Amino acid sequence: MKKWLIGALTIVASQAIADEGMWQPHQLPDIKQQLIDAGLKLNPDDMSDLSKFPMNAIISLGGCTASFLSPQGLVVTNHHCAYRSIQHNSSEANNLLQNGFVANNKSDELPAAPGSRVYITESLSDVTEKVTGNISSELSGNAYYEAVENNRKRLIAECEVSQDYRCTVSSFHGGASYVLIKLLTIRDVRLAYAPPSSIGKFGGDTDNWQWPRHTGDWAFYRAYVGKDGKPADYSEDNVPYQNKAFLKVNANGVEENDYVMILGYPGTTNRYRSSLEVESTFTWTYPTAKQYREEFIDVIKAHSKAGSDERIKYESTIAGLANYAKNYGSMVESYKKGDMLERKQQLESDLTNWLAASPNMNAKYGASLLLLNQLIGESEATKERDLLLAYMGRTSLWSSSKRLLRLAYEKAKPDAQRDRGYQERDMARFKQSVQAMNSRFVAEVDKALLKHFMAKYVELPAQQRVATIDAFFDIKGKSLVNAYKKIDSMYAETTLVDADSRLAIMEQDFDSLSNSNDPFMQFAASQFEYDMSQEKESKALAGKLQQVRPEYMKALIAFKKSRDEAVYADANSTLRITYGNVTGYSPQDGLQATPFTTAEGMLAKYIPGDDEFDMPESLRAAIEQKRYGKYLNKKLGSVPINYLSTVDITGGNSGSPTLNAKGEFVGVVFDGVYESIIGDWDYDPTYNRAIHASSTYMLWVMDEVDGAKSLLDELVIVE
Amino acid sequence: MKKWLIGALTIVASQAIADEGMWQPHQLPDIKQQLIDAGLKLNPDDMSDLSKFPMNAIISLGGCTASFLSPQGLVVTNHHCAYRSIQHNSSEANNLLQNGFVANNKSDELPAAPGSRVYITESLSDVTEKVTGNISSELSGNAYYEAVENNRKRLIAECEVSQDYRCTVSSFHGGASYVLIKLLTIRDVRLAYAPPSSIGKFGGDTDNWQWPRHTGDWAFYRAYVGKDGKPADYSEDNVPYQNKAFLKVNANGVEENDYVMILGYPGTTNRYRSSLEVESTFTWTYPTAKQYREEFIDVIKAHSKAGSDERIKYESTIAGLANYAKNYGSMVESYKKGDMLERKQQLESDLTNWLAASPNMNAKYGASLLLLNQLIGESEATKERDLLLAYMGRTSLWSSSKRLLRLAYEKAKPDAQRDRGYQERDMARFKQSVQAMNSRFVAEVDKALLKHFMAKYVELPAQQRVATIDAFFDIKGKSLVNAYKKIDSMYAETTLVDADSRLAIMEQDFDSLSNSNDPFMQFAASQFEYDMSQEKESKALAGKLQQVRPEYMKALIAFKKSRDEAVYADANSTLRITYGNVTGYSPQDGLQATPFTTAEGMLAKYIPGDDEFDMPESLRAAIEQKRYGKYLNKKLGSVPINYLSTVDITGGNSGSPTLNAKGEFVGVVFDGVYESIIGDWDYDPTYNRAIHASSTYMLWVMDEVDGAKSLLDELVIVE
Repeated sequence: MKKWLIGALTIVASQAIADEGMWQPHQLPDIKQQLIDAGLKLNPDDMSDLSKFPMNAIISLGGCTASFLSPQGLVVTNHHCAYRSIQHNSSEANNLLQNGFVANNKSDELPAAPGSRVYITESLSDVTEKVTGNISSELSGNAYYEAVENNRKRLIAECEVSQDYRCTVSSFHGGASYVLIKLLTIRDVRLAYAPPSSIGKFGGDTDNWQWPRHTGDWAFYRAYVGKDGKPADYSEDNVPYQNKAFLKVNANGVEENDYVMILGYPGTTNRYRSSLEVESTFTWTYPTAKQYREEFIDVIKAHSKAGSDERIKYESTIAGLANYAKNYGSMVESYKKGDMLERKQQLESDLTNWLAASPNMNAKYGASLLLLNQLIGESEATKERDLLLAYMGRTSLWSSSKRLLRLAYEKAKPDAQRDRGYQERDMARFKQSVQAMNSRFVAEVDKALLKHFMAKYVELPAQQRVATIDAFFDIKGKSLVNAYKKIDSMYAETTLVDADSRLAIMEQDFDSLSNSNDPFMQFAASQFEYDMSQEKESKALAGKLQQVRPEYMKALIAFKKSRDEAVYADANSTLRITYGNVTGYSPQDGLQATPFTTAEGMLAKYIPGDDEFDMPESLRAAIEQKRYGKYLNKKLGSVPINYLSTVDITGGNSGSPTLNAKGEFVGVVFDGVYESIIGDWDYDPTYNRAIHASSTYMLWVMDEVDGAKSLLDELVIVE
Repeated sequence: MKKWLIGALTIVASQAIADEGMWQPHQLPDIKQQLIDAGLKLNPDDMSDLSKFPMNAIISLGGCTASFLSPQGLVVTNHHCAYRSIQHNSSEANNLLQNGFVANNKSDELPAAPGSRVYITESLSDVTEKVTGNISSELSGNAYYEAVENNRKRLIAECEVSQDYRCTVSSFHGGASYVLIKLLTIRDVRLAYAPPSSIGKFGGDTDNWQWPRHTGDWAFYRAYVGKDGKPADYSEDNVPYQNKAFLKVNANGVEENDYVMILGYPGTTNRYRSSLEVESTFTWTYPTAKQYREEFIDVIKAHSKAGSDERIKYESTIAGLANYAKNYGSMVESYKKGDMLERKQQLESDLTNWLAASPNMNAKYGASLLLLNQLIGESEATKERDLLLAYMGRTSLWSSSKRLLRLAYEKAKPDAQRDRGYQERDMARFKQSVQAMNSRFVAEVDKALLKHFMAKYVELPAQQRVATIDAFFDIKGKSLVNAYKKIDSMYAETTLVDADSRLAIMEQDFDSLSNSNDPFMQFAASQFEYDMSQEKESKALAGKLQQVRPEYMKALIAFKKSRDEAVYADANSTLRITYGNVTGYSPQDGLQATPFTTAEGMLAKYIPGDDEFDMPESLRAAIEQKRYGKYLNKKLGSVPINYLSTVDITGGNSGSPTLNAKGEFVGVVFDGVYESIIGDWDYDPTYNRAIHASSTYMLWVMDEVDGAKSLLDELVIVE
C-alpha cells in the first residue's frame, strides 16, 4: 500500500468519541491513543497498512464484507451474503438452502453464483485535484455534474488496466475529497460451506433487526486464481489464492466488556446532513413512506386472498415493503424519543457563530450552510409529488412500459453512450426481468394499486400536478372518474400482461413504440419527455450539491478541528475500521438486553416445521444433551450464540469479521438491534448495538452438527 | 378472632417452597421459620390473628382486596377496583375518569357506585362436619350436590343475623374441608381520591399483563358507619369507620431483594388438578378457545367496517375476546416451554407408589385418582360440543331468547326457589341488560357469527350432535343449506332485535312464550328441555366431584406431609398471605426485566392525546424538570413507578397492599407479567412476577400532581 494522507482534511483526533466512528485506515495512527485506551493490543500504525495483517485479510464481496481464514484462500462471510450462491447450487433434489452444504474436499466445492467476486483493496490514492481541480466553479449544475463524471470515468479507465482490477473513485465528505481505489478482483469464487438455513437464517424476517437473536449467519467461500497466482476465469486447474494475511480463529469468542473491532466496507450513512434535511426526512419522508408502504400492503391483501396463488406472487413484495416500513417506523420512533434535531441545530448555530468570529473563515464558508439549505429547499419543493410518483412507479405495468420505451430510446445510441442498465452487458438480465414479471404480478392487484395511488395523486397541490399525467388520464380537478375509466380500459386492452408481448416490444424501435396501439405504451410515450426533463433536473441539482456540500463539510471539519474533535467521513462502501466493546443495553425502561444469547434460548424459540424457527434435529439433540464439549462457556453454562457490541456499522459491513484486541477472529457481524436502525443518521451510544454470531458457536456447529472436519483442520484455532 | 385450626389437614411445613403459596392465616405459625428466614420482622403468630395488625387492616371489596391506611376508615385499593365508582360519579361536564378526583374535605367525598361494600373478615370456623358429616356417601351425584348446597345455605342463613354481616361457606381442597367465614359488611362507602386515568390506567389494554409497566393503579375510598359504630345505610350523619388496625406508609418503598408480602383475597387457582385435566386444558381447551375467540373477532371485523357505528358497538366485545385470547395464548406458550405436565405425571406416579406401599392408605385412597380421572373423562366426553355451544351462546339473539324463556319459567316459582339471577332482587339489572342489548349488537354481525359457528357445529362427531338443534334447523348430515336458510329467515322475522319487544316478552308467561310466533322464541322453546337436562347433568357431575376430589386431595396432602412438604389450598377468595422478594426476571434468553421502572420511562411512553398513553401535563412537567424532591430514589436517579416481585397472587389480589418486612405499606399490587399468567395452574419461580405500584410514586403523585395534601396529612408516613 502506498502510504497515503488525505491532505488538508487530516484531523488530529485527540477527542474521538469512543465507539462512534467508521475510520479510514490512514486515520488509525491519529486515533492511536484511543484505540490503545480502548484495549487494542495491535500497533495502530501497522493496522493502517493495507498490505499487512490484519487489514490485508479483509475483503469485499461487493455489498458485503468478508475475510480470509486460512492461507488457502478460505473466506468467511455471512450466510445472507452467500445466499445467492447457495440458492444457485440448490435443486429440488438437493436443496442446499435447506440442508446446508459442506465441501470436505476442495474438489467438492461448488462455483458461486455468476458474477460473484472477491475484491481486495490494493491501494488508495487521493485524486481530489484530478477530479475537481480543473473544473471551473462557474459551471452550471448540469455541466459541473458531467465534468466530475467525466473526470471520474477517465481515472477509472486509466486504472482498470485489465479485468484483474476494478477501480472506483469514491467521494468523501460530499465531494470535499475523492479517492481512487484499486481492487484486485478474483473471479473464480467457490462455495465451501454453508449451514442449513435453519441455522444460517434462523429467526427469519421475524427476528430481523431484533434482539434476542440466535442466528448462525456465516458461510465459507474459497478464492481461486490461475497457477500464476493471478485472477482467472473458473477452471479446474485453478489453485487456491494465497493471500498475505489471514485471521486466526479464537475458539473462546468474547466475554462481556471485551474490546472488539470491525474491519469492513460500510455502505452509506448520513451523519453530516443538515438539520433541515433531518427534520424533513424524519417528520415527513419516513412517516409518509411508511404509510405508503402499509397502504400498498393493505391494497394487495384486499385484492388477493391469503394463501391464494395471487397472494403468493406478492409475498416477497409484501415482505420487502413491510421490512422497510418497520425500518422507517423504528427510525421515526427513535427520532421522537431522541434529540438529534436539537443537537444538529445547536451544532449549526455553534458553527455559524464560530465562522462569524473569523473574517477569513466567514469569507470562505460563511454562506455554505445557507446555500446548502437553499438547494435542499429546492429539492423538497416537490417532495409530495416525487414520493408519490415513486410509489406509483412500483406498479408493474406503469414501470414496465416506461422501461421498455426507455430501452428503445437508449438502443438507438452507441452502446458506450447508453445509460447504465441499458447497455449490451445488461441485456441478458433485462430480458430475464421482462420475462419473469408475471411471477410477481397480478393484473387486478396492479390495477387496484394504481387506482389507490391515483386517488392520492389528484389530491396533490396544484403546482405539483404533472400536466402530462393530467392530460393522459383526462383528469379534471380532483375527479377520479375519467382516470379510473381510463385505467380500467388500459388494463382491459393492454398486451403487456403477456410475457411474449413484452419480449416482442423489446425488439421494437422508439418511433414505432411511440405510436403503439397498446394503451400502456401510449402512456409511456405520453410521459417520456417529462421524465427525461426530470432526470436532467436531478443531475443539475446533484451537480450544484457537489459544489456546495464540500464547502459546508470543510467548514464543519475546520470547526470540529478547532474543538479537537475527530471527524470520520460518512460511509461510502470503502474500507473502514470501527471499534467498541461487548455490552448489553436497555431497549426501554425496565428491560435490559444482556450481551449474550445461548443455545438453550435458541431451543426455546424452536417451532417444528416452521419457515423461520425450525431447527436441525442434530442441533436440537446436541442442546438437549448439552453436548457442548470444549465449546462450553462456563459463565453462561452454554454455547454463546450471538452477542452485542457497540461497534458502529451499517449495511455493507455484513459478513465483516469481528476481531478481538489481538486481531483474532471472534465472530461475524450480521445485523443491528431495532433501536440502532437510526444509526445511519445518528450514532447513539445508549442504543447502538451490533449483533454478532460468535466464533464459538460457529466452531461448535461445524464440529458437532455440520461435520465440517476438514475445514476445521484448515483453520488456525487459538484459545 | 377465634383461634382456628383446620384439624386433620394441618400441615407442619418444614419445607415450604419459598415464594410459592397462598397461605391461610392459621398456617403462618407453621411456616414461621421460612417467613423469618425470608426476612419477616413481625411475629408470624401475631399475623395469624385476624383481630390484630396487620391482618385486621386487610379488607375485601368483593372481587378486589383493599386495606386501611388511617384510623379514620381511609381505604386504598386499585384504580381499576374503584373504576365503577369513579365512572358512577362522572359526567360529561365533570369527567372524574379523565380528570381524577381529590376530596380535600370529608364532606367532598362522593358515594361509591351502588352496591359497593367493604368486607372485614371477623371469623373463620371449620364447618366440614356440618357440611358433609350428615350426608350419606351412597347418595347419587345430584342428591349429594343438593345436600351440600342445603347444608351450606342453612349455615349461611344462621350466620347472617343482620345485614351487617355477610357469610360464606368456602370449600378448601375441592371439598376436603369447609370453612364458614363471617364478614362485617360496611355499606356506606365513599370515593375519596382517584388519580386521572392517564395515571391510574396508564398503558391501558396494550400494557395489560406486560412489563415494563408504568401504571399508578391506586384509588382511595373511605368507609363510613353509623354514630353507633355499626354498619349503616348512607347518611350525612354517618361517621368514618374506626378500624382496629391500619397500615403506615413507607415513603421509600422498596429496594431490590427486599422482603415483601401480600395479604389479600385471591380468587381461583388450579394448582392441584390432575395431569389428565392439565393436558386436556392446555392441549385442547385453551388452544381451541383461543382460536374460537380469534375467529369471533375476525367475523365481527369482516362484517363491520373499522370506525363504523357497527364496529363501535362491538369494540368492547372485541377487547374482551382479545384479552382472553392473549391470556390463553400466554398459557399455551408457557405450557409448551415448561414441564408442568411431566411434573404432574411424576407426582401422580410417586403418589400411586407411595399409596401402594401402605395397605392402610391404599385401602382408603388407592382408587381416588382413578375415580377422579373417570369423572374428568366423563365431563370431557362432549368437550367439543360443550365449548362450541358456549361460543354459539355468545351470539346475542340465541342467548337472549333462551334467557327470556328461562325467566318466564323461573317466575312461575316462589321467589326463594328461583335460580340465581332470576329472583326479584335481580330484576332491575335483568331489565337493564335486556334494554341495553342493542348498544352492543348488530343483527347482521350476530347472524354472521351464528352461521360461522353453525358451520363448525355440523362438523361435530355424530354422537355429540344435539338432536333438538338438528331438528329445529332441519340439519341433515353436514349440509348447512337448511340451517342457513332457517337462520336467514329467523333474523328477518324476529322482533327480538327491538328493545320494546324484548321488554314485552319479559312480561309473558312460559306457556305463551312456548307458543310464540317469534322464530327465536320458538328456537328457545325447542331447546328448553334439553338445556334443563344438561344443567341437571352438570350438577350431578359436580356432586360426584365433591365426593371424589376431597379423597384425592387428602391422599395428596398425606403424601406431601410424608415428604415434609407444606400444602396450601387453591385460592378461593378467602384471606391469604403470600411472601417473596423484589427482583427482576429473564422473560427470554438475552433479555432481563429489571425490577423497577422510572418516571423517565413513563415519559418515554407518552403519546399526546392517546387513549392509553396520554399523561397529565403536570406530571410531564414534574418529570421533565426532575421535581422529585424527597421522593427521589438515589439509586434509580428517579421516582420508582412500578416494581416486580415473586409473590404468588391471582385475580382477587388486585388492590392488595404490599407490605415490607415490618408490615409497612410499600405499594399496591395490580397485575402479573405475561409469563406468569399460567401461574393460576403452576407457580414457576423463574417467570412468576407480580407488578406493584410503588408507595413512593403514589405519595409523589398525591403531593406533586394531584394536590391531595389533606389525605397525605392523614397518612402516617415513615421512612
